[in-house]
Amino acid sequence: QDWRSRGRAAILQYVFLKWTFCLFIGILAGAVGFFNNLAVENIAGRKFVTVSKLMLANKHWTAFWVFAGSNLALLTFATAITAFVSTAAGGSGIPEVKAYLNGVDAPDIFSLRTLVVKIVGTIAAVSSSLHVGKADPMVHIGACIGAMVGQGGSRKYRMTCRWLRYFKNDRDRRDLVTCGAAAGVAAALRAPVGGVLFALESLSSWWRSALIWRAFFTTAVVAVTLRALTDICGRGNCWLYGKGGLITYDVTADTVAYRLADLPPVILLGVIGGVLGSLYNVLMVKVLHVCSLVNERGRAHRLLLAAAVSICISCCLFGLPWLAPCRPCSNKDCSTIDHPGGFENFQCPPEHYNDLASLFFNTNDDTIRKLYGRGTNDDFQKSSIMVTFGASYVLGILSYGVVAAPFGLFVPIMLTGASYGRLVGMAMGSDANLDHGLFAVLGSASFLGGTMRMTVSVCVIMLELTNDLLLLPLVMLVLLISKTVADAFNPNIYDLILRLKGLPYIEDHAEPYMRQLTVSDVVAGPLRTFNGVEKVGNVVHILKTTGHHAFPVIDEPPFSSSPVLYGLILRAHLLSLLKKKRFLLTRSVAGSDAAGQFGADELGKRGSGKHDRVEDVEVSAEEMEMFVDLHPFTNSSPYTVVETMSLAKALILFREMGLRHLLIVPKSSSRAPVVGILTRHDFMAEHIFGLHPFLRKSRWKR
Amino acid sequence: QDWRSRGRAAILQYVFLKWTFCLFIGILAGAVGFFNNLAVENIAGRKFVTVSKLMLANKHWTAFWVFAGSNLALLTFATAITAFVSTAAGGSGIPEVKAYLNGVDAPDIFSLRTLVVKIVGTIAAVSSSLHVGKADPMVHIGACIGAMVGQGGSRKYRMTCRWLRYFKNDRDRRDLVTCGAAAGVAAALRAPVGGVLFALESLSSWWRSALIWRAFFTTAVVAVTLRALTDICGRGNCWLYGKGGLITYDVTADTVAYRLADLPPVILLGVIGGVLGSLYNVLMVKVLHVCSLVNERGRAHRLLLAAAVSICISCCLFGLPWLAPCRPCSNKDCSTIDHPGGFENFQCPPEHYNDLASLFFNTNDDTIRKLYGRGTNDDFQKSSIMVTFGASYVLGILSYGVVAAPFGLFVPIMLTGASYGRLVGMAMGSDANLDHGLFAVLGSASFLGGTMRMTVSVCVIMLELTNDLLLLPLVMLVLLISKTVADAFNPNIYDLILRLKGLPYIEDHAEPYMRQLTVSDVVAGPLRTFNGVEKVGNVVHILKTTGHHAFPVIDEPPFSSSPVLYGLILRAHLLSLLKKKRFLLTRSVAGSDAAGQFGADELGKRGSGKHDRVEDVEVSAEEMEMFVDLHPFTNSSPYTVVETMSLAKALILFREMGLRHLLIVPKSSSRAPVVGILTRHDFMAEHIFGLHPFLRKSRWKR
Repeated sequence: QDWRSRGRAAILQYVFLKWTFCLFIGILAGAVGFFNNLAVENIAGRKFVTVSKLMLANKHWTAFWVFAGSNLALLTFATAITAFVSTAAGGSGIPEVKAYLNGVDAPDIFSLRTLVVKIVGTIAAVSSSLHVGKADPMVHIGACIGAMVGQGGSRKYRMTCRWLRYFKNDRDRRDLVTCGAAAGVAAALRAPVGGVLFALESLSSWWRSALIWRAFFTTAVVAVTLRALTDICGRGNCWLYGKGGLITYDVTADTVAYRLADLPPVILLGVIGGVLGSLYNVLMVKVLHVCSLVNERGRAHRLLLAAAVSICISCCLFGLPWLAPCRPCSNKDCSTIDHPGGFENFQCPPEHYNDLASLFFNTNDDTIRKLYGRGTNDDFQKSSIMVTFGASYVLGILSYGVVAAPFGLFVPIMLTGASYGRLVGMAMGSDANLDHGLFAVLGSASFLGGTMRMTVSVCVIMLELTNDLLLLPLVMLVLLISKTVADAFNPNIYDLILRLKGLPYIEDHAEPYMRQLTVSDVVAGPLRTFNGVEKVGNVVHILKTTGHHAFPVIDEPPFSSSPVLYGLILRAHLLSLLKKKRFLLTRSVAGSDAAGQFGADELGKRGSGKHDRVEDVEVSAEEMEMFVDLHPFTNSSPYTVVETMSLAKALILFREMGLRHLLIVPKSSSRAPVVGILTRHDFMAEHIFGLHPFLRKSRWKR
Repeated sequence: QDWRSRGRAAILQYVFLKWTFCLFIGILAGAVGFFNNLAVENIAGRKFVTVSKLMLANKHWTAFWVFAGSNLALLTFATAITAFVSTAAGGSGIPEVKAYLNGVDAPDIFSLRTLVVKIVGTIAAVSSSLHVGKADPMVHIGACIGAMVGQGGSRKYRMTCRWLRYFKNDRDRRDLVTCGAAAGVAAALRAPVGGVLFALESLSSWWRSALIWRAFFTTAVVAVTLRALTDICGRGNCWLYGKGGLITYDVTADTVAYRLADLPPVILLGVIGGVLGSLYNVLMVKVLHVCSLVNERGRAHRLLLAAAVSICISCCLFGLPWLAPCRPCSNKDCSTIDHPGGFENFQCPPEHYNDLASLFFNTNDDTIRKLYGRGTNDDFQKSSIMVTFGASYVLGILSYGVVAAPFGLFVPIMLTGASYGRLVGMAMGSDANLDHGLFAVLGSASFLGGTMRMTVSVCVIMLELTNDLLLLPLVMLVLLISKTVADAFNPNIYDLILRLKGLPYIEDHAEPYMRQLTVSDVVAGPLRTFNGVEKVGNVVHILKTTGHHAFPVIDEPPFSSSPVLYGLILRAHLLSLLKKKRFLLTRSVAGSDAAGQFGADELGKRGSGKHDRVEDVEVSAEEMEMFVDLHPFTNSSPYTVVETMSLAKALILFREMGLRHLLIVPKSSSRAPVVGILTRHDFMAEHIFGLHPFLRKSRWKR
């Protein structure tokens, strides 16, 4: 059922609602993004100010205890709510959103509980000086808002509204989730165009032209909301909010001049980014794999692991700056010392600053802003940047890989990239006429390209962050090189995490071995079909004995002269039918109004996680002998392929059309009208190799 | 056949070639874009300089004759080469590229002849002071380069190369054309990201994530090429090249401050843009329709029409500035007077300038730059801008609608929008704190949104042109409003032109009436099928009597126990088979090496326009009685739908998968294994209404 077959009033209602939802999503995502920043700036800022004051007063040990203690408390809190309230909120969330948009409904990813844990957990984890960011969770938060707005609030506490019935289907929910994810990126990085491109390039598996335009509207709303809220706080009445927490515009210069001679270091940066990025991915997956084994042992183990990491990181961050010498702040404004976002005095005498501490004792956003800063070539020593790079690289993997709490990878990757970008700039010495801040920007781009393998969206995001379009060719070049280099080693990090989680994600291309198979080669198990008018007992029996989500419906004599494929019926609809108990005494066709007795709610798509189970349906022995007419509830236009169709082509059909079930029809007329049914799992490599072990060898042959 | 089934060496070769092609496309598109600009700047610049000098010397009539004469000569030349050499080069070219990417092969659109005419014709037409732009033809030129690079040069003069055999298929050609089109936009507007988005949003019907990344690489190459060439010319050794002809960066200020109070005029601009834009579309289509009737009468008519338009425009441009009063150039640098791109003295005394003439006697790019200029609130009078707007609106429609030569719509639309944007800014008076140049930018955006209905790509292009990301929220708002308003009236201008040309373009959504039909309702005419091993005489007869491009192949006894669908064979392959004359004496299956006897060239996709015809194949009477085995040449994995599939769902399948033929299989087992074949034409509204006239009414019911 599509909205185009409805009346004009319903269409207007639908279109109006769709845009209203986008507006809501935009406003909510913008508000949440702002709130996250406000909270992190204040919590982390308060912590850093306190530590700085204690250090100034030479109470070094007290400072350490305050620092480590608050970090430990915040991280334990974040891990605890994740473990006890909603484990689905852990991690980045981007792989889950990507899988959802591919058609995989992971349990509980879009519930109100997950949303709240994600917001609170992100704030706590990011404030705890863990080397993590708040950008990725914003994508999940945005998607979550999108899914919930479409459902009219959370599934438990939703206001039931007739208008919303049109949105109870896969397509509209997916659209709203896509818009929400784009809004999340826009809110996290203040990059409206980048948000749309991010959703387009790396999240969604299906895309329509109309969706670009809706996503664009949503991110525009986010941009306006953010601007309005930041304006309110710009007057200094948001405590430590300061410069906005968001990585702001105007970081670098407004004119960049570069010559052909500047290309070699830029190309070098790209290659370094590719190599380091793919290595980062490998290490991250290794660590994640090991820790997931530990984490499965129970919540106590998770908390202990998180506590250990937190203490370790606190020691690192507090210990390493002692190695850095004090530098006089003659050439800079010493009044910024010990303000949030400024330079740190640490153990140094007055009028001096410790450059390493200045990088460590700030939020990631402030650190990145420092590294991107223009005309700051002399602010940092090579050794300090080197330590920053090492710490950032190792702690980034350690933080994300070990701790199971909500946080993201984007910002730490930017920071790591910025640090080695500066290193390359310093190594060039006076040969390069580019600013070190510019090297940092290019380093970020190269590391993002090497780990996440996004090109257009990262490029646009970098441009929107730095507000300097003249950077474009350099950023493009760096991204292209780093992605090419890294792609030679392994896939992008989100895909690796997806695979580690075992979600049945369908790739957008077919593997070579799939060309050697036809669809009939991979269909396993007996096929269960229903007659057009089926005995209730049969329905209950088949539902109880199989886990399939859809069944072909075949009309047999006396309803037709020979077996005829009527369509496909969903398990959920069968269960609704059984619950309603509109059974027939004889094997006959029900009236045409049968479907009208069901409200849209009953046949519509439920929120994730809310499924009826066949065990909950009670059918008496008498009713078991009655019949039920399945025709009105059957989708009579299922997609089909002939049995000799190559598996690769079927995969492309399956993915492009966003299917859940694909019927296989025979080539010859002499057989049953349906010979099998393909689902997502039939396309998974493990399933295929299970059936055809010899392919496993040929897979690696070339 | 897909590259994934080839050996490792072939894959490497393929990937390497693919990227090399993108590199070539980028360099070529960049070079052509630069050359176009150079030529236009020099030809038009020379003309304007001569006219200015004559005006300064008070030789007003001589000036007019020079102006009108050169315009007439240039436009007649452009029209003549279009009419006599390649009519496919006429017009914008964007609709044709869009149709090609949708699957419609219009004849001759990607030949070398068309490319040359397009380049030369655009230069002449744009230099002739016709109110047209050079952006749209660049899209066609880019696409043309893409198609020809993939074929290894033009089809007539191509170097035959074994490596290229992998690119002789629809998919790779389409990818290269898409990259080429993106490169064209990037070269025309110097907007690399905008180019990718333009191709994505408004050109392509299919899109893969990998393609974004390739298109992005191509546009990056374009950006670098353009920059390098412009640097060479920046030293003043390209005659009148001046500021580059491309609408350059840094047009407006680097800081834009706006408050909530500025929103009403911005919203007003959006509404005006929507209304004027949809009206523009209506008028344009009317004019195009009328003139196409005249143009069909012959080449002489076309030339006469073009000459009439040219004289009329010359009179307008030369006559109207006499109405404008002279203004003292006290507050500006009078040294720019009478240099190309500067202010014009026209009939005024020294130290004065005529603002209307300054807008008219410059290339469109310079005029737009003037209108966008910051701090120029007092440079122009309200009346002059009003005349500019009127002339631009009317002459734009007149120029594009009447003359059949290669040129585009993008730049004139920008100019028209900029003029009414300034008008709105002036009408606001001192109430608005925004600069009039900014109003002009927003006006352009609104008019582009109102006519072309692109959102993200226009937004990014405007940002790349003005290099000011702070404009983003305002541009977004204006675009959203103008598109929404205009969409209420009619579709975008390229779709209207497509429809006028009668190209069978498949929309990305199904019309309501399609849900009431099943696929078997629209299949017309008898179905022609072949046996797996068919008599040569039958093949020739069917090929001669039908125009179908594909035929189902059905195995019948004795090759199978009952009729079995084997696959689909293409007309082109049948013709190759007949030419090769590998016939069998008896009805038996040929050896498995039969396909191996054909080179990739023979079975590969030909360049557009190069088709064998059945009349060219000579088969003797003896051979007519022989048999041919079709199995090796049949695609055994055709896409199929069951006969009760809703037409709307079949349409989506057809479009999403980029199909040319869709087989219809029966639901019941008792019938022939194929009941029909759907092609693009079966989805066209005219065809459906011809079969089901009653739907025509219901179409307008809601």
